Amino acid sequence: MSAPRNHSEKQTNNMFSHPLLDANPGLWAGIVTTLRNKHYNNGDRIVLHGDTADSLWLVLKGWIKLTRQTPDGKESIIGLCTEGEMFGEAALFSHANYPYTAEVAGNSSELVGIPSTTIRSLVSKDPSLSAQVMTMLSERTSQAQLKLEHMTTMSAAQRFGCFLLRLCNTQLDGIKTLQIPIEKHILAAYLGMKPETLSRSQQQLKPLGISVAGHIITIRHIEKLRDFVCNSCSESGNCSTDAAS
Amino acid sequence: MSAPRNHSEKQTNNMFSHPLLDANPGLWAGIVTTLRNKHYNNGDRIVLHGDTADSLWLVLKGWIKLTRQTPDGKESIIGLCTEGEMFGEAALFSHANYPYTAEVAGNSSELVGIPSTTIRSLVSKDPSLSAQVMTMLSERTSQAQLKLEHMTTMSAAQRFGCFLLRLCNTQLDGIKTLQIPIEKHILAAYLGMKPETLSRSQQQLKPLGISVAGHIITIRHIEKLRDFVCNSCSESGNCSTDAAS
Repeated sequence: MSAPRNHSEKQTNNMFSHPLLDANPGLWAGIVTTLRNKHYNNGDRIVLHGDTADSLWLVLKGWIKLTRQTPDGKESIIGLCTEGEMFGEAALFSHANYPYTAEVAGNSSELVGIPSTTIRSLVSKDPSLSAQVMTMLSERTSQAQLKLEHMTTMSAAQRFGCFLLRLCNTQLDGIKTLQIPIEKHILAAYLGMKPETLSRSQQQLKPLGISVAGHIITIRHIEKLRDFVCNSCSESGNCSTDAAS
Repeated sequence: MSAPRNHSEKQTNNMFSHPLLDANPGLWAGIVTTLRNKHYNNGDRIVLHGDTADSLWLVLKGWIKLTRQTPDGKESIIGLCTEGEMFGEAALFSHANYPYTAEVAGNSSELVGIPSTTIRSLVSKDPSLSAQVMTMLSERTSQAQLKLEHMTTMSAAQRFGCFLLRLCNTQLDGIKTLQIPIEKHILAAYLGMKPETLSRSQQQLKPLGISVAGHIITIRHIEKLRDFVCNSCSESGNCSTDAAS
């Protein structure tokens, strides 16, 4: 190993902090040399829509924007992935292409790429990994369906509030400071609203103790935000944002 | 077997026409006695949101509405399943609950229920079935993400047109007559629009050769409808509605 010891240890720690690897470190330790830990800068493109899906990507740090173009020239932001999430699930299937372009959306980003041959071989041999991957795919479906529901049952301010609550992870109450280095028009598009609607939503959340200063958002009372948002969501009480850590 | 021979043969034929069973009939033949072929009437409830997910359900005939309630009393229609589709994927995971209520939405319906213990045991033993289930889960995610995209890139008339194209399956051009025995307010809610917007959308599609008479919809030129709809969709050219049969 030519890498300095500290650097190598840092990478390994980071990698195994991701939920996919954290659940079964023994399984991954055997193939750790095939995993690629990569650093990217703001605006870097990681994968291109239509390219062969040769890796499954785990996000260790930063924000990744998943986009598609329509033939009549509209860009659609279909996902924003951050720490602990993954993208490129097409790599689980043979002869599949990436169904979106993935680019770094804010500051630098650190990812792990798992070659498609490695992940497919592991999944076909290990029923527990196969079950874990199916659970993750199923959760991804539920999230997309819930986001669709929110487009009709929630106001714009509630949808923005729900996005913030998800970033609080399982913290149930108290104060939380979030750093979201994403341009306003990208975040607004992801939430299905215009940038001016996002600005109005931020104003609407002020009385609940939410303050926005550049890319820093402070939530003074998570429980108040939850009351405001979750009453209009059918997953209320079952959602990952409700679960105690 | 006490069932009349013809009845039994009809059930088996129907069951094996579903894509999940059709792809690997040998695998399912061994456990066919554990599968439950059931008939339901309009309005019948099949599963209740929050109940233990004890079966995966395959739709052989009819329409199933998947709904959830928000704490503040709004009903959200998160899915409409018809022939060849499935619901209740939560049954693939141990100790999971149904994330929605499923009810028959129009006329009668015929379903096959696969007990959760049966499907979980098969999936854990058979890597090809496991891969097939992962593909189906991944397609479900893609569909939900695409529907989200359409909420911002497409007009209401285009979204209604896309719904019709999906029911044409892989028929690329020519005339198609569809029977959609679903009340207008349910279909409108599923498409994320008001009933009056759905009526206006039907009017807008008339010049393209779409006529609506009660629950019968005639599409005179599938290719014209595709031109109108798919130009605003990032899946254009890759979609199941484009694939030649």
